[in-house]
Amino acid sequence: MSATVLAARPGLRLVDGTPGQVARTELVTPGMCGPNALFFGAIGDWTWDAVSAACGTNVYDARVAGGAPTYLSFYYFHLLGTDRLHPLRVTFGDRLRVESGVFRLASESVLTLHRIRYDDGAPDRPVEAGEPFTEPVEGCLYAVNVNRWIVRGRPDSNRGLARGVPADFVTDDLPRLPADWPPRLAYTRARRAGVFDHDPPAGPGEPERFAADYPVEASRDLNGVGLLYFASYFSIVDWALLRLWRRLGRDDRSFARRVVTDQRICYLGNADADAVVRVELALRRSGPDEVVDVSLTDRASGDPLAIAALRMRPGGPL
Amino acid sequence: MSATVLAARPGLRLVDGTPGQVARTELVTPGMCGPNALFFGAIGDWTWDAVSAACGTNVYDARVAGGAPTYLSFYYFHLLGTDRLHPLRVTFGDRLRVESGVFRLASESVLTLHRIRYDDGAPDRPVEAGEPFTEPVEGCLYAVNVNRWIVRGRPDSNRGLARGVPADFVTDDLPRLPADWPPRLAYTRARRAGVFDHDPPAGPGEPERFAADYPVEASRDLNGVGLLYFASYFSIVDWALLRLWRRLGRDDRSFARRVVTDQRICYLGNADADAVVRVELALRRSGPDEVVDVSLTDRASGDPLAIAALRMRPGGPL
Repeated sequence: MSATVLAARPGLRLVDGTPGQVARTELVTPGMCGPNALFFGAIGDWTWDAVSAACGTNVYDARVAGGAPTYLSFYYFHLLGTDRLHPLRVTFGDRLRVESGVFRLASESVLTLHRIRYDDGAPDRPVEAGEPFTEPVEGCLYAVNVNRWIVRGRPDSNRGLARGVPADFVTDDLPRLPADWPPRLAYTRARRAGVFDHDPPAGPGEPERFAADYPVEASRDLNGVGLLYFASYFSIVDWALLRLWRRLGRDDRSFARRVVTDQRICYLGNADADAVVRVELALRRSGPDEVVDVSLTDRASGDPLAIAALRMRPGGPL
Repeated sequence: MSATVLAARPGLRLVDGTPGQVARTELVTPGMCGPNALFFGAIGDWTWDAVSAACGTNVYDARVAGGAPTYLSFYYFHLLGTDRLHPLRVTFGDRLRVESGVFRLASESVLTLHRIRYDDGAPDRPVEAGEPFTEPVEGCLYAVNVNRWIVRGRPDSNRGLARGVPADFVTDDLPRLPADWPPRLAYTRARRAGVFDHDPPAGPGEPERFAADYPVEASRDLNGVGLLYFASYFSIVDWALLRLWRRLGRDDRSFARRVVTDQRICYLGNADADAVVRVELALRRSGPDEVVDVSLTDRASGDPLAIAALRMRPGGPL
């Protein structure tokens, strides 16, 4: 347990008697919502808080035995929303209850699951690893985050990141994931295939394809240690999606009203401040929804940076 | 006093016996730092927290008597940093102490002053309105925020915003600003002249001038209620500054290392999601520093959106 982090992030509560479980109540501020990936940034911070509390490491200031900084990098991010609660619907003044569980994946990686709902004043309840896939609680938004420790291989580069676990990082007490935990299989397959499966699957026919080059914006896309910020990947996907949206003859207002009920990213690499990201999209119908497959590639090297998938509906009225 | 906000933002402490004064200790997360205006967003949230605590209104969910939402909009933002503590230097794991005072400006507007420093464990101390200008505490970063209440004039537009004070907003108990409080004169003059004064002034000679058009990015620049986010104005200024930087033959790495010790913005108007912002910069020497004057204008209408000023030095080593 990292007392330092618990003291400095006072919204965090331990859920009694359940290893790896914390809870918090959040009043949503402008700094954590909007069509700007700030809500994804907030979820990322909640993950770092939960892991700090569960694993005895101050994730915000972690170092390997030799003293080099190490970062609890995002490896897989899966958001499962509903019409009632999805990232674009969250707004100022909403009161959210966030219950989070941290699970052991391997010695250098953990899974954090957040159950997010409008606050109903009920007591804190632990969240189960399989819950969003087997018995989701009505009206909740779930975020699954898989993270692992990485260090820079070279001081001035964001490429060639290597493993590096902090000395005080302990996951032995945490519950392990069941072997048949669905996302592990899904993202392992996606990393191999370069594309996610959809369930229900996309319909037949040719997808709408779109590709564009996004130059990393040194004034905006990096985090406080100069790495491409994990939430910026969501912004880059949205940037390209808006341009596909317009090409389909849809207006910006309906873009703001789209309902995204499922969003996944596998993080495959980081990029430098002067990189150009090639973004390729393929949009298909899937029943009443649309599904979008996305790949992000470093244009110069061809190295994959991320694969992503969305399930959404063009929006109704606000 | 808004008990709802204090309960849901549990980091906030009242500073005993001093009306309008609150304090907090913040562990810096990725979601509140970096060259991405997230730190400005965090300061904005701290302002809304402080005003909620001081004025009895839940600023995050405020309405005028008729029921329409009203927003505590940013009118003037002034940040005074030092080499030791400035927005680009703040990083993950820093522990900051933030002491904030709210002062009465007029019936619909308030001034919030934040004194920000690395946490030294000392007891909370009230902050005086004139402090950053007359006797700043060594090594502190100050943020001066002037805010006033605005409502949308038309539901689908971000232009023609009007006044609208929530019924429960009470500033009578707050200390008033001294008549000779320096920033009020400075920003009033700047709004009239369209440019800030610099102290010490800029040197003689022709400035380096640069202009560029920034299309508002609907996937990124708006806040949770569809207005151009106040922190996005900082991003737009930085976007243009980076392009001037490159034209001067400087590299992106030194851009990340620049030391910005003074940054001011007067907010003059909001813009719609499809607006194009004309950004004009003028850079001059001022002793050992560089000063930059910035204007943001709606390209289509010619309406002013903001004027800004920076004092900085091209960066040394990190």
